[in-house]
Amino acid sequence: MSGRLRLGMVGGGRGAFIGAVHRIAARLDGEFELVAGALSSAPERARKSGRELGLADDRSYSDWREMAERESSRPDNERPDAVAIVTPNHLHYPVARTFLEHGFNIICDKPLAVSLREALELERLVAETGALFAVTYNYTGYPLVREARELVRSGRLGTIRKVLLEYTQGWLAGPVETEGNKQAAWRTDPARSGPAGALGDIGTHAENLITTVTGLDISHLSADLTSFVPGRELDDDVSVLLRFHGGARGVLTASQVCFGEENSLTLRVYGDRGGLRWEQERPEELVLFEGEGARRILKRGNAYLSEAARMADRVPPGHPEGFLEGFANIYSAVAEALRARRDGNAPAGAAAEFPDVSAGVRGVRFVEKVLENARSTERWTAF
Amino acid sequence: MSGRLRLGMVGGGRGAFIGAVHRIAARLDGEFELVAGALSSAPERARKSGRELGLADDRSYSDWREMAERESSRPDNERPDAVAIVTPNHLHYPVARTFLEHGFNIICDKPLAVSLREALELERLVAETGALFAVTYNYTGYPLVREARELVRSGRLGTIRKVLLEYTQGWLAGPVETEGNKQAAWRTDPARSGPAGALGDIGTHAENLITTVTGLDISHLSADLTSFVPGRELDDDVSVLLRFHGGARGVLTASQVCFGEENSLTLRVYGDRGGLRWEQERPEELVLFEGEGARRILKRGNAYLSEAARMADRVPPGHPEGFLEGFANIYSAVAEALRARRDGNAPAGAAAEFPDVSAGVRGVRFVEKVLENARSTERWTAF
Amino acid sequence: MSGRLRLGMVGGGRGAFIGAVHRIAARLDGEFELVAGALSSAPERARKSGRELGLADDRSYSDWREMAERESSRPDNERPDAVAIVTPNHLHYPVARTFLEHGFNIICDKPLAVSLREALELERLVAETGALFAVTYNYTGYPLVREARELVRSGRLGTIRKVLLEYTQGWLAGPVETEGNKQAAWRTDPARSGPAGALGDIGTHAENLITTVTGLDISHLSADLTSFVPGRELDDDVSVLLRFHGGARGVLTASQVCFGEENSLTLRVYGDRGGLRWEQERPEELVLFEGEGARRILKRGNAYLSEAARMADRVPPGHPEGFLEGFANIYSAVAEALRARRDGNAPAGAAAEFPDVSAGVRGVRFVEKVLENARSTERWTAF
Amino acid sequence: MSGRLRLGMVGGGRGAFIGAVHRIAARLDGEFELVAGALSSAPERARKSGRELGLADDRSYSDWREMAERESSRPDNERPDAVAIVTPNHLHYPVARTFLEHGFNIICDKPLAVSLREALELERLVAETGALFAVTYNYTGYPLVREARELVRSGRLGTIRKVLLEYTQGWLAGPVETEGNKQAAWRTDPARSGPAGALGDIGTHAENLITTVTGLDISHLSADLTSFVPGRELDDDVSVLLRFHGGARGVLTASQVCFGEENSLTLRVYGDRGGLRWEQERPEELVLFEGEGARRILKRGNAYLSEAARMADRVPPGHPEGFLEGFANIYSAVAEALRARRDGNAPAGAAAEFPDVSAGVRGVRFVEKVLENARSTERWTAF
Repeated sequence: MSGRLRLGMVGGGRGAFIGAVHRIAARLDGEFELVAGALSSAPERARKSGRELGLADDRSYSDWREMAERESSRPDNERPDAVAIVTPNHLHYPVARTFLEHGFNIICDKPLAVSLREALELERLVAETGALFAVTYNYTGYPLVREARELVRSGRLGTIRKVLLEYTQGWLAGPVETEGNKQAAWRTDPARSGPAGALGDIGTHAENLITTVTGLDISHLSADLTSFVPGRELDDDVSVLLRFHGGARGVLTASQVCFGEENSLTLRVYGDRGGLRWEQERPEELVLFEGEGARRILKRGNAYLSEAARMADRVPPGHPEGFLEGFANIYSAVAEALRARRDGNAPAGAAAEFPDVSAGVRGVRFVEKVLENARSTERWTAF
Repeated sequence: MSGRLRLGMVGGGRGAFIGAVHRIAARLDGEFELVAGALSSAPERARKSGRELGLADDRSYSDWREMAERESSRPDNERPDAVAIVTPNHLHYPVARTFLEHGFNIICDKPLAVSLREALELERLVAETGALFAVTYNYTGYPLVREARELVRSGRLGTIRKVLLEYTQGWLAGPVETEGNKQAAWRTDPARSGPAGALGDIGTHAENLITTVTGLDISHLSADLTSFVPGRELDDDVSVLLRFHGGARGVLTASQVCFGEENSLTLRVYGDRGGLRWEQERPEELVLFEGEGARRILKRGNAYLSEAARMADRVPPGHPEGFLEGFANIYSAVAEALRARRDGNAPAGAAAEFPDVSAGVRGVRFVEKVLENARSTERWTAF
Repeated sequence: MSGRLRLGMVGGGRGAFIGAVHRIAARLDGEFELVAGALSSAPERARKSGRELGLADDRSYSDWREMAERESSRPDNERPDAVAIVTPNHLHYPVARTFLEHGFNIICDKPLAVSLREALELERLVAETGALFAVTYNYTGYPLVREARELVRSGRLGTIRKVLLEYTQGWLAGPVETEGNKQAAWRTDPARSGPAGALGDIGTHAENLITTVTGLDISHLSADLTSFVPGRELDDDVSVLLRFHGGARGVLTASQVCFGEENSLTLRVYGDRGGLRWEQERPEELVLFEGEGARRILKRGNAYLSEAARMADRVPPGHPEGFLEGFANIYSAVAEALRARRDGNAPAGAAAEFPDVSAGVRGVRFVEKVLENARSTERWTAF
Repeated sequence: MSGRLRLGMVGGGRGAFIGAVHRIAARLDGEFELVAGALSSAPERARKSGRELGLADDRSYSDWREMAERESSRPDNERPDAVAIVTPNHLHYPVARTFLEHGFNIICDKPLAVSLREALELERLVAETGALFAVTYNYTGYPLVREARELVRSGRLGTIRKVLLEYTQGWLAGPVETEGNKQAAWRTDPARSGPAGALGDIGTHAENLITTVTGLDISHLSADLTSFVPGRELDDDVSVLLRFHGGARGVLTASQVCFGEENSLTLRVYGDRGGLRWEQERPEELVLFEGEGARRILKRGNAYLSEAARMADRVPPGHPEGFLEGFANIYSAVAEALRARRDGNAPAGAAAEFPDVSAGVRGVRFVEKVLENARSTERWTAF
C-alpha cells in the first residue's frame, strides 16, 4: 500500500445501518480514507454526520449533485478515487448516473437499481465511461464462499445438479414499519425500495450467491410471492423454483417473516461427485462431501484452502472473522483494482475480483423476472 | 403390560432393511412377539428367515395368501393381533386388502399404496371392517416432533405462515441400482415402487411431517420433478411449492441425489408469534423462537415438555434416543390402541395416536397431485 | 441366532431406571428373554414387577439368595444363561458372589463393588469359576467410541499425548435427595452407594472410557474432590490430573452439580499425528484431526469405518442410534460370547468384546486411589 | 468522536502477527490513527514497514528509546495519545517502563512481563505517573463474554461453584520452531518469551477470562506442566486445578500440542442457580442454563442482552462479529477513557472498561505461581 485511497460517500448519515458498515469495511484494512460526503439531504444532519466522521466542512454536502459537481473539479490528488452509494434503493440510479457522468468510480449497494431499465442504463454508462463499478454483494466476500466457488470451478463436485439457498430473517414478522423502525419504513415503501421487498433486499443477495458460487445461469424460474403482514405493500416472503441451463435445479427461499431468525443464509450445492454446505451465521466452516470418505470441515485460514480463499485472510484459523471482514474484502478488491488502474497495471487477478455492474444488472433482472412470473399464469418464466 | 401382543409380518426376510427395523421397533418395548410371517416368497429363504427369528415352522409361510388364510383360522389366543406389511410398495395394497378381509389389524409401511385408487379402497375397507390400521410414518414418533405439534396446536407460535421442509439423501447420487444395491433396485423400479421415486419414498414422509406438525391442509401445489441419474426411470429429486388453506406457504424439497447427505430431514415452522426448527439427524434438540427472548433449545426427556412428548420417553435427557426409539413409539401407540380395543376401553388418548389409514391416503394423494402437476402446463394443482 | 438366551435379573423393579435400561438393551436385538428375577426385596413389589415383565410367578423372587439357589437347580435348558445385577452398588458384591458360586454368568452394573477388596475377590472368583462376567460400562458400546479405539490402536493418531475427559451432569445441583428423588437418595447415601458419589457413579465411566479408547495405563493421579450441596455426605464434583505410563497426560472432570447439564460426556484424545473429539450427546459424530488436511466428521454407519464400529450397527447412517443401542451392544457382545462358549467355539473376536471383570476392578481401584489421594497431603498417588 | 486519537507502536513490523491485529483493532472504529512507530529494530525493515503504514519518515524509528525521547518532546497536539507495545514478551517491561517514564499512556500485549518483579514495578510506575495502562486480554472484548460477566455479577447463576476453562491449540504439536516458523521460534525461546511457554501465551488469557467473568479470586492452585515436543525448552501443555476463595473449584487446561485444534477456547461456569457455556470459535452464541426451563441460546446484538454486551455492537444479530471486533472493543474502551481523561470527564463507565495493569500483574503472578507449584513437591500453592 502506498497512500490511502480517497473515498466519497452518498447517504449513510447518523443512524444509518449500511453506511456505517461500508465505512468500517473501507477502514478495516486501512486502504481508504473518507474525504467527502453527502451523508444526508438534511443540511444540519449532513454537517453533523460529516464532522463526526472527520470530513472537512467544505467537503460535507447535503446535495449529492453539488457534491458530484464540486468534487469532480478538484485536482487529481484530492478527488475521491471512488464514491460509495449507500442510499435507499430508489436513489441508486440517479446518484450513480450522476457520479459516473462526472467521471467517478462507484461502489454501490445492492440492489443496483429499482428497474431493469435503470440497471441497463448504468451498465451502458459504465461501458461508456470505463469507470470501475462495484456492487456490494458482500456475502461473496467471505473467504469460504470463495472456497466454495473454487471447489465448483475446479470440478471437485463434478457436474452441479442441485442448489438449495435459503435466506431467512424474522425482523419484519411484525408491522415494525408502523412502529418507528426506519430501516423497515423505507424497505417496505415502494417509493423508496422499488417494486420488491424481501425479494430486492435479500433475494438479490441469494441470487448473487448462487450465481457466483456455481457459475450456473438461470434458464427459467417459477415463484410464489407473499406479503404476510397486513397492510404491507411489498412482498415479505419469496420462494422460487429455479432451472439452470445445463439441467441443474434449484430452490431459493427468501423471507423476512421467519419469526426469530436473524440472518440465516445457507447455501448447499450438490454435484454428481461432491457437495457442500455453508451457513452465513457460522461463516468460518464449510462442509465438504466428497468421494467415499467422510465429510470434511474446511475452516478459514488454513493452508489447504485455495489461494482465492487465502487471500481474503487477516488472522489465523480459529480466530473468527465475520460479516465486516467479508464486507471489507469487497473494498480491498476494489482498492487493488483502483491501484492497478492508477499504476497502469494489468488487472490484478483474484485479489481484485468484486461483483461488478453486470452482477448488479443480473440481480435487478432476477427481481423483474420473479415479479413477472408472480403476475403471470404461466408456470415458468424464461430468464 | 399383561401379556405380549402377537405380531405377524409379510416381507422382511434376510437382508431386508425396513423389516428388521419394524422388528426392533416391535420388540424394543417388549410389547409384541413375532408369531407368524411370510418373510419371503422364496420358500427356502422364508423358512430360514423364520427360524432365525424364532418362528415355528408351521407359522412361517412363503405365500402371504396362505398365511392370511391359515392364521385367520387359528383360535383367538393364537391369532396375530396385528400384521406388519414391509414389502416393496406394489404389494402393500394386495397384502393389506387380503389381511383386512381376513379380519386382521394392519401396520403398513409407507407409502400406503401405489395409486390413489388403491389407497381409497383400503380406506373404505378399514371403515367397513373396523380394523385398526397404522401407517409407519415413523418420523412423527420422535418425542420432539410431538412437542413441535403441541407447540403449534397450543398456539404458542401463533398463526402459521411458513413451513420449510427439506429431506435430502445422497445414496442414489450414482447409478447404484445397476451395481447390485437391492434397496436401490426396487425403489427405482416402477413395477415395484410405483410411479414415484424419491417422491414416494421420502416425499411422503415429508408431506406427513408437515401435515402432522402444523395441522394445515394443502390447498395447491406446484412441483418440479427431475431424474438426474442417466437411465433412471423414476424421479430422484423433487421440489414443491405449497399453499395451504388459510394462507400459509411452504417449500418441500426431497432429493436422493444430494451427494454426501445421509438422512437430512429438517423441519422449520414459522408463525406470527414464534418459530421452531428440528433436524432428524439431531433429534434430541428442538429450537424454539418465541417472544422477544432468546432462542431456546428444548431437549427430549425434560419435565418442561408437553405430556405428548413425555409419554414417548424411555431414558432421561442427555441419553440420546434416536430413529429406532421413534419408530418404536409408533408400535407402542398401536399396542396401546390394540389393548384398549381388546379390553373394551375407550380410545387411549395421545398414547394411542399413530398415523392412520387417512394419513396414508393423504400421502398417496400427495404423490398423485405432484405427478399430475409435473405433467401439467398449469402452474398450480388443487389438492 | 438359534433360540434366545435366558436372562435372570436382580434388582430393577418398578420405577428403577437402570433395570429398565438393561431390559431394553437385552431385548433390542432379540437375543435375550427374561426368565427369572428378584426384582425387588419387597415381596409384593417383586411379584407385581415380575408379572408386568411376563415372569412366571415361580421364577419371580423377593430374595436373591433363594433365586440363586432355586434357579441353579433347574435343568440346563431352563437355567438363566446369565444374571444381570442392577441393584444399588453395595449389593453388587454379595449378589455377584452368590450367583458366581452357584455357577452363573454375570452382567453387572458399574461400579463393580464398593471396595477394592470386594472387587478383587470377585475377580478371583471369576478366574476360579471360569464364568463370563461383564460390567456394563455402556459408553464403550457406542460404535464411534469403538472407532475411536481403533483409530488409536491403528496408530492413526501417533503417540498419544493428551486426553481430556469431561463428564458433567446437573441433576444433583440441588438437594434433591431430600426431596423425594429415589435415584438421588441412594446415590448420595454411603450405605448404598459406597464411599464415592459422583466419583463412583460417573467417574468410573470416565476412567473406563479413557482406558478403553486410549489403551493407556494410569501411572499417577492427583485429585480434588468436593461436595457442594450442604448436607451431602458424598462427593458431587471431581477433578483429576492424570499421568500415564509412557508420558501422556490427562484431565478428568466428573461433576453432578453442573447446573443445566444433562449427560454431557466428552472425550478428546490428541497424539503427535492426529486427534479426535467425541460427545455422548451427539454420539453419531466423531471429529478426526489428521495430517495437514481439514477436520473430518466420521458418522456412524458408513463403510469407511472400522469393522469394530460397523459390527455395532443396526440402521444406515443418518438414522440416529443412541444410548440404548450402545447399551444393547454390550448385551449383544455378551450374547455372542455366551453362544461361542455354549457351542464350544473359540472366542468370537471383536463382536464378543465387552468390559470384563478386570475393567470393573480397575474402576474400583480408580475410586480408591482418588479417595486416597484426596485424603493425602502428597500431590501424586501412584496407581 | 471529535478527532482521531494518535497511536504510537513499538514492534509489529512486516510479517508480525499481533502487530497487524492491533492496528486493525485500532482502525476498525476509526478512533485511532497511527502516527509514530518503532516497528522493527532493523532500520531498513523499520523504515519500509513505516512507509507501508503511512508513517512519516521522521516518526518511524528503529530504536524505541529514541522514539520515546523524540515523541515525548513533540507538542501536545502531535504526541501519541497512547503507545501500543506488541514486541516479544521480554521487551514489554523495558519498553513500557521507558514510555511510562516519558509520560505516555500504554496499550501492552499480554503477558505484561516475564517476571512478577517487573510486573509489580510497572504497576508501581502506573500508580506514580497516573498513566492509563491497558493490557490486551482481547477475549474479554467479546460482547458475549461481557454478557457472561454480567450474568454472574447480577446473580443470575447464583453462587458460582465450578469453572471449566479449556484453551487448546495444535500449532505447536510439531517442532515448528526449528522449521522456520518465526512465531514459534520466539514463543518457545526462554530468552524472548520468558520462563513460560503455553502457560504465558495462552494460560494467561485463560486466567484472565476466568477472573474477569466470574469475579472470583484464586486461593490455591495445583498444576501439571509438560513439554511434549523433544528439544522444546518451555512448557507446551498445562493443566491446573484451581480453588477459589469462597469455595468454588476450577479446572484450567491450556495446551498448544492438541493436534488439529485451532484456537479452541471454551468457558463454562456453573452456579447453584444457573450455568453458562461460551466457545471462542463460535463467539456469537452463549448457552444459558437457568431455572427449570430449557437451555437458552443468547446471540450477540439482541435487545435482551445487558447494556455492557450491547455497547460492544457494530452490526445486528446474525451478522457475525469475531476476533478482530472483540479486540477492537478493547481499543474502543481505551479511546473512550482517553477522551474522558482529555476532556476532564469522570470515568466513562462500562464503555471505558478494559483490562488494566492489575489484570496484567495478576496474569504474571499466575504464571509464577504455576511454575512454583510445578517445581514444588507440595500439592497446593497459595495464590
